[in-house]
Amino acid sequence: MKELTVKSLLDSASSWLDATGPENDIILSSRIRLARNMAQYPFVSRSTTDDMAEILENVLSASSHCHSLATAGFADMTDMDELDRKILVERHLISPDFGSGTWPRGALIKDDEKLSIMINEEDHLRLQAIVSGLNMGTAWNTLSRVDDELSVRLKYAFSEKYGYLTACPTNAGTGMRVSVLIHLPGLVLTKDIDETLKGVTQIGLSVRGFYGEGTEVLGNLFQISNHTTLGKTEEEIIETISQVITQIIGFERRACETLLKEARTHIEDKIWRAYGILNHVRLLTSKEFMSLSSAVRLGISLGIIDNITMKSLNQLMVLVQPAHLQKLLGATMEAGERDFFRANMVREHLMKTRRKRDTKKKNED
Amino acid sequence: MKELTVKSLLDSASSWLDATGPENDIILSSRIRLARNMAQYPFVSRSTTDDMAEILENVLSASSHCHSLATAGFADMTDMDELDRKILVERHLISPDFGSGTWPRGALIKDDEKLSIMINEEDHLRLQAIVSGLNMGTAWNTLSRVDDELSVRLKYAFSEKYGYLTACPTNAGTGMRVSVLIHLPGLVLTKDIDETLKGVTQIGLSVRGFYGEGTEVLGNLFQISNHTTLGKTEEEIIETISQVITQIIGFERRACETLLKEARTHIEDKIWRAYGILNHVRLLTSKEFMSLSSAVRLGISLGIIDNITMKSLNQLMVLVQPAHLQKLLGATMEAGERDFFRANMVREHLMKTRRKRDTKKKNED
Repeated sequence: MKELTVKSLLDSASSWLDATGPENDIILSSRIRLARNMAQYPFVSRSTTDDMAEILENVLSASSHCHSLATAGFADMTDMDELDRKILVERHLISPDFGSGTWPRGALIKDDEKLSIMINEEDHLRLQAIVSGLNMGTAWNTLSRVDDELSVRLKYAFSEKYGYLTACPTNAGTGMRVSVLIHLPGLVLTKDIDETLKGVTQIGLSVRGFYGEGTEVLGNLFQISNHTTLGKTEEEIIETISQVITQIIGFERRACETLLKEARTHIEDKIWRAYGILNHVRLLTSKEFMSLSSAVRLGISLGIIDNITMKSLNQLMVLVQPAHLQKLLGATMEAGERDFFRANMVREHLMKTRRKRDTKKKNED
Repeated sequence: MKELTVKSLLDSASSWLDATGPENDIILSSRIRLARNMAQYPFVSRSTTDDMAEILENVLSASSHCHSLATAGFADMTDMDELDRKILVERHLISPDFGSGTWPRGALIKDDEKLSIMINEEDHLRLQAIVSGLNMGTAWNTLSRVDDELSVRLKYAFSEKYGYLTACPTNAGTGMRVSVLIHLPGLVLTKDIDETLKGVTQIGLSVRGFYGEGTEVLGNLFQISNHTTLGKTEEEIIETISQVITQIIGFERRACETLLKEARTHIEDKIWRAYGILNHVRLLTSKEFMSLSSAVRLGISLGIIDNITMKSLNQLMVLVQPAHLQKLLGATMEAGERDFFRANMVREHLMKTRRKRDTKKKNED
């Protein structure tokens, strides 16, 4: 299994953010993860370092025979410096908890970042597929295939009664968590968001922030995911959440229609101010970036702004995060310094995007 | 005496805002006005309509013999519609109180707007000279000359003991009010402004807002003027206020130096954000315009922004006022509509200014 270098990831944007999937103006990504454990070892929290080393070896060995993982690279967490690890977190490839520590563990990551496997996180294996837009079918096909391939060589802990056994009982059964990253500025502006999210939680789904459990909602981006993993088939879970998400997309589109009808100029003002600030700012926190980019995203979605594409905005959203910023600039920086360089990066990115668009328009004329 | 049309004024910016005078990055304008009354008539508040008609006739007749007023036009207030009157107020050529009513009155206004005379305002005559930058000498020379010319044909109410007699005793003596319009963003940002203004009032000067007495301070623009008109010569009054203003300019420059030294990026951020918003805004109140343009003004003053000249910014400040906006667009508008058209006007003005600069730069290359 070849080694993964973080540098190679930085050369391109995460392909799940390329804004190609269905409804990508509202749904940034669909993600599914499966929790799996090997029957012959205790759960990670109870296993020894030797156990973990063996688990890792077994999984890597099994993976090397999977077609699905032919282009994957292995990121050894014990080897990796903190900044690189944080970059993987910022790209949603590993969890923040997978970070520091010396126990044997690592992540297999496919070159397009659509498929990744954490080994020895909370469970022995955490398989993840992530795709652009509302596209759970594709994510599930990808994941199901690699899961099948791995199960040929790995003996999963499985009970006829409970399904897949997991370190935390809330994951038992299918071991599946489906989540979509959804942008709901319209419902926030019409103040219907609380009611909508209340409905979502009442039917057993969870709502979380940009970086997952316990994190803040930034830039009107919500992660909606299933809570229940037990007593339903994978297809049923996907079907339920798909229906809910489709409904929310409808609510969001209607909220935007209402806003455009009743307060078009106010919406345009909000969007263009945000774009104006991003184009001229000299100090910019992550949090403010998320808030301003939300307005720009809405602008692209509503056809008000065409100075930047959704793909380019998604790319920027990844690049301006603290670890990416520091890696790209090759320097460790305090928050205040990062705000300065983040502002520079945003301005340059927007300027390049505009030039590219202008050139394209010129060539079309 | 030719008639003044407001339309002719709109073709050019008020020349006292052309940013040519000394210290024009901090001092927008120096203004002096003289209150005069004719001896043979009661004050305006006690005179009959016939008296006022005679006063007006006398002043116009005397004015027609003044070299200083050769290019002046007469604006008859009884004839003028409200919007046009408001335009004169916005250009600081007449006072807001001179507005509505049917009593005989009017204003003589020199074509470059540097010299004007209100007839039958609070006093029979209110002579005003206004020039760019810190330039009270020039203003005084202009005003003194026309005052002398008029006094040949008009018998002023004058007492050996009290000097010029005025409707309100606070104006008696010299009848002179000197005021400068000063931009103090540095002292506002360093929070030294209250202390500074306290000092100013303690030595007998007044501080007021953009449109004079009782008006709000907008965009960090302060009007500083003398309070005492009695017991000092005109030259002494000018000398005192000049000294104080020179000191305040020093304070402001030092405040800016401190800010640049200690928080340059924050200042640049503030300035560029304001510029970015003005370039993209879709709804803009007068008040917010003043606040944002203050930051841009500071940017020009500190050499941080060269996308717009001080003259062009001053011009914009006049054009976006409610009456100007409505006159230029040929429509009566509610505040909300004005905010929309003000935003359009600002964006277009800034775009033109940038193009002009770019063309100039290109030609220089």
